[in-house]
Amino acid sequence: MSGGFKCRHLTVVGLGLMGGSLACALRERAEHITGVDRDPATLDYALKHKIVDAAADDLKAGVSEADVVILAAPVRAILHMLDGRIGSYLRSNTLLIDIGSTKADIVDAMANLPIGVQAIGGHPMTGKESNGVEASDGALYRGRPFVLCAARRTTPAARERALALVDALGALPIEMDAHKHDQVVAAISHLPYLLSAALVATVAEEGRADDAVWNLAAGGFRDMSRLAGSDIKMMGDILSTNTRAVAKMLALFRRELAMIEAMLISQDDVKLAELLRPAREARLEWMRRMTARTEAGKHGT
Amino acid sequence: MSGGFKCRHLTVVGLGLMGGSLACALRERAEHITGVDRDPATLDYALKHKIVDAAADDLKAGVSEADVVILAAPVRAILHMLDGRIGSYLRSNTLLIDIGSTKADIVDAMANLPIGVQAIGGHPMTGKESNGVEASDGALYRGRPFVLCAARRTTPAARERALALVDALGALPIEMDAHKHDQVVAAISHLPYLLSAALVATVAEEGRADDAVWNLAAGGFRDMSRLAGSDIKMMGDILSTNTRAVAKMLALFRRELAMIEAMLISQDDVKLAELLRPAREARLEWMRRMTARTEAGKHGT
Repeated sequence: MSGGFKCRHLTVVGLGLMGGSLACALRERAEHITGVDRDPATLDYALKHKIVDAAADDLKAGVSEADVVILAAPVRAILHMLDGRIGSYLRSNTLLIDIGSTKADIVDAMANLPIGVQAIGGHPMTGKESNGVEASDGALYRGRPFVLCAARRTTPAARERALALVDALGALPIEMDAHKHDQVVAAISHLPYLLSAALVATVAEEGRADDAVWNLAAGGFRDMSRLAGSDIKMMGDILSTNTRAVAKMLALFRRELAMIEAMLISQDDVKLAELLRPAREARLEWMRRMTARTEAGKHGT
Repeated sequence: MSGGFKCRHLTVVGLGLMGGSLACALRERAEHITGVDRDPATLDYALKHKIVDAAADDLKAGVSEADVVILAAPVRAILHMLDGRIGSYLRSNTLLIDIGSTKADIVDAMANLPIGVQAIGGHPMTGKESNGVEASDGALYRGRPFVLCAARRTTPAARERALALVDALGALPIEMDAHKHDQVVAAISHLPYLLSAALVATVAEEGRADDAVWNLAAGGFRDMSRLAGSDIKMMGDILSTNTRAVAKMLALFRRELAMIEAMLISQDDVKLAELLRPAREARLEWMRRMTARTEAGKHGT
C-alpha cells in the first residue's frame, strides 16, 4: 500500500506536537498544507519552519478548500467542532479524520455530519515528553499503532483513504469499534493516569509529615508519577468522555489490589508471590512483544 | 570529608549489581577486597574483572579478616546472617553495614550482635534496569541518597566511619530512624510496586477478553508496569518485613483514589480538576528538585 496516499490540500486543525508531526510526516503527500490554530505564535512557527504552507486562525477559512482535514485537538474541542458548523464548511468528499484520545462520543458526533463528508475516527498511540509545534517530528507515528474507528456512516472509500493515510505515516493501522477502543484505553492509559495521580497525592500527604519522602523518591517513583504530570485539561476531556469504561477499570483494579492486600496482611508469602508472579510474567511477555515490534519496525517489515 | 574513608580489608557479601558496584566504587579505598557469594560463576567473574582481590563461598572465611563488611544481599538473607553466627566470625571493631531495602527488622537484629561489632543499617536509593555482577558500576551510588539508620548500639565512631564510606561512594548521606525509613519507602517504593502489579493484573484480565489491549499499550503503560517486572523473591522479602507501613500506605492511597473516583462518577469536572491539579504540581515540583540535584551533582557540589 506504500506510496498510495496523496492529497491536493491537507488541513491540520490544531498544531500541537501531534498535529505538527502529522503535517511533517505528510509533507510529500500533499500539494498544499494549511494549519489552523488559535495561537498566532504557533502559526508563525509552523510557517517559518515550513511545517505548513498556509496558516489560518479561522476554522472555516482553513478547511473550506481541503480534500483531507485532520482534527488534532483535545477531545472536547473536536466535539465542539463536530457539533458546530464544520460540516457546512467542508467540500463534498472531504476525508475528515480526528485523532482524539476517546472515540465513542466523537464517532457518534460524526454521524450528524452532512452526507458526503467522509468521516472516520482515529487514535494514534504515540507521544513525546515535550509538547507543542516546536517538538514536531515526522517520525512520531512510525511503527506505532494507529486505531481507526468507523462512524455509522463511514464508507468503504473513506476507510480505504484513512488506511492509506495511516500507511503513509508509517504507522500500524488497527481497526476497532469505538466503544471497544474506549474500554481498551481506559485500561492501558486512563486508569494508569488516575493511579499515578492518586499515588502522587498519597506521597504528598506523607510528605507533609516528612520532607524526606521527596528526597528519597527515586527511579520507581519517577516512572510511576510521570503520568500525574499530564495536562489537566486534556485529561479532564478524556475522562469526562470515557467515564463508564474508566469506572469499570477502577472497579477491576480495586479487586486486584484488594486480593494482593489480603495476602500481604495475612502474611501469606507463598500466596502473595502466586499473585505477583503472573503480573511479572505478563509484563515481561509484553516487553518481549514490544521489543520484537520495534525490531521489526527497524527492518521495515 | 572527601578522601577520609580508608580500610585495610573490605568484604562485600553478595556480588549482585549493588555489591559489585560497591566493590568497584571502593577499589582505591581498600587495600584488599574479598567478595562472598554462593554462585561460583559470579565469583569467577568478579575475580577475573578485578572487582575483588579474593573470593569466598563461605561467610566465615570471607568476613573473619575484614575490618569493614558490607552485607549486600536481599533482606531475608541479611536477617538470616545477623540472626546466625556472623557476629562470632567478626573481629572486634569491624564496621558492619548492610544495604537491605527495609531497615527496622535489620537494625533490630543488629542489636544482638556481640559488643565490639560496629553495626549500622544502610539503604542506598539507586539501581539499574540490568542486574548481576556484570552490570557493576562504580558510579552507581554517585549523587544518590544513601540512608543510614543507627542501631540501638551504633557508636559515634561507627556512625563516623559509615558517613565516610557513604562520602567515598559519592553518595548523599541521609540519617534517619529505621521505622521512619520503612514508612517513607513504603510510600515511594513498595506502594508503587503493588500498584504496578495490580495494574498489570487488571490489564491482563482485560487482555483475556481482547488481545488488542497488549497491542495498544504504549509509553504510559510501559512506565507504570515496569515495577511489576521486579524480582518476586526480593519484593516478597521487602513486603513481608514492612507489612504494617505498606498497609498504612495502601489505606491512604485507597482514600485518594476513592475521592478521585467520586468526582469522576459524579461528572464534576471542576472538582475532579481540583483534585488532579495538586498531584500534577507536586510531580512537576519534585522533578525540578531532582533536576537541580542532578545538576549540582554534575558540578561536584
